[in-house]
Amino acid sequence: MTTDSKEGVDPRVRRTRTDVLRVAGELLLNSGWDRVTHANVAEAAGYSKATLYKHWPQPEDLLRAAFLHVGGFSHGEQCGELRADLISEMEAFRRVLIDEKLATSLVALADRASSSAAIAMIRDHFLGEGQSLLVELVGRGIRSRALRHGLDVGSAADMLSGALVYRIAIMGEVVSTAYVEAIVDVFLRGTECR
Amino acid sequence: MTTDSKEGVDPRVRRTRTDVLRVAGELLLNSGWDRVTHANVAEAAGYSKATLYKHWPQPEDLLRAAFLHVGGFSHGEQCGELRADLISEMEAFRRVLIDEKLATSLVALADRASSSAAIAMIRDHFLGEGQSLLVELVGRGIRSRALRHGLDVGSAADMLSGALVYRIAIMGEVVSTAYVEAIVDVFLRGTECR
Repeated sequence: MTTDSKEGVDPRVRRTRTDVLRVAGELLLNSGWDRVTHANVAEAAGYSKATLYKHWPQPEDLLRAAFLHVGGFSHGEQCGELRADLISEMEAFRRVLIDEKLATSLVALADRASSSAAIAMIRDHFLGEGQSLLVELVGRGIRSRALRHGLDVGSAADMLSGALVYRIAIMGEVVSTAYVEAIVDVFLRGTECR
Repeated sequence: MTTDSKEGVDPRVRRTRTDVLRVAGELLLNSGWDRVTHANVAEAAGYSKATLYKHWPQPEDLLRAAFLHVGGFSHGEQCGELRADLISEMEAFRRVLIDEKLATSLVALADRASSSAAIAMIRDHFLGEGQSLLVELVGRGIRSRALRHGLDVGSAADMLSGALVYRIAIMGEVVSTAYVEAIVDVFLRGTECR
């Protein structure tokens, strides 16, 4: 997913953005976020630096777009059954944290966010996008009365995302699909209507 | 708590270590972990650098001791009732993450652990110590049959610690005691014997 969701944008402009962000996203995941500069991305994508500056005037603009582009791939396939959908979404998050450099980028982002408002904004955009489908699934579960009314969606969702981020990004360990199923089952048991 | 738990250590040596680690812990929490150097700590504690090097030969030794000293303060008071004990422990963790610089130190530690085996060892020691009482509480809950047999203690404990670390250290938000109670209640509901 790109951040460019406007209708009616010139197709060439859209292609340029998609091309550049694909390369920026790859750089972010494979080489770490400090490699996502106008110069590096322009060279790797085969566009001029001037073109990149036209689309993303500030370094933060390019970095945020790269994070959002990558983040968009992290959502799991949905089928409408709550447990399966939660496992699919958290499994997609687990894979992106482990297979790619996202875990280290996320920690680096959080580390630098405390001293830069621009970085803090990127962090907030990225985490908001990353958590959006999970929050939606939990909210849908409450509305359909599968999950109990009055549940605090934010803290409940943190228990799933937080477990994975804590174990993989903070503790630096690798976990399997069984781990994802275990936390989703504790979550569902703890939040379901009885 | 200091890392020096040996019996029969000269009381003066023990006092020196306690003095120095108290100061090193304060530096860690108030100024960030990159200030915890032999020179800075020696000056602030009023000991010679030579004395510090005798007790902690490497920079990593001093930093690890400072983290463990600080970590020891993070445990909550225990009364034997599982819900109260879990809330007390997670509330202590919440306070230490919010009130002190521990959240930023933890993220900085995780960030640098991926490129340094020495830092990774400090992180592992520190997180192991930090999570120890929580893991013990969950284990005790299983043995007393309050929590269900077969529960995966590690991933379940991650859901509590992870929620707080994710929200406070990664997202940079402040949460209240109500947040702690909400996650402990989802946790207990999700893990209890029925």
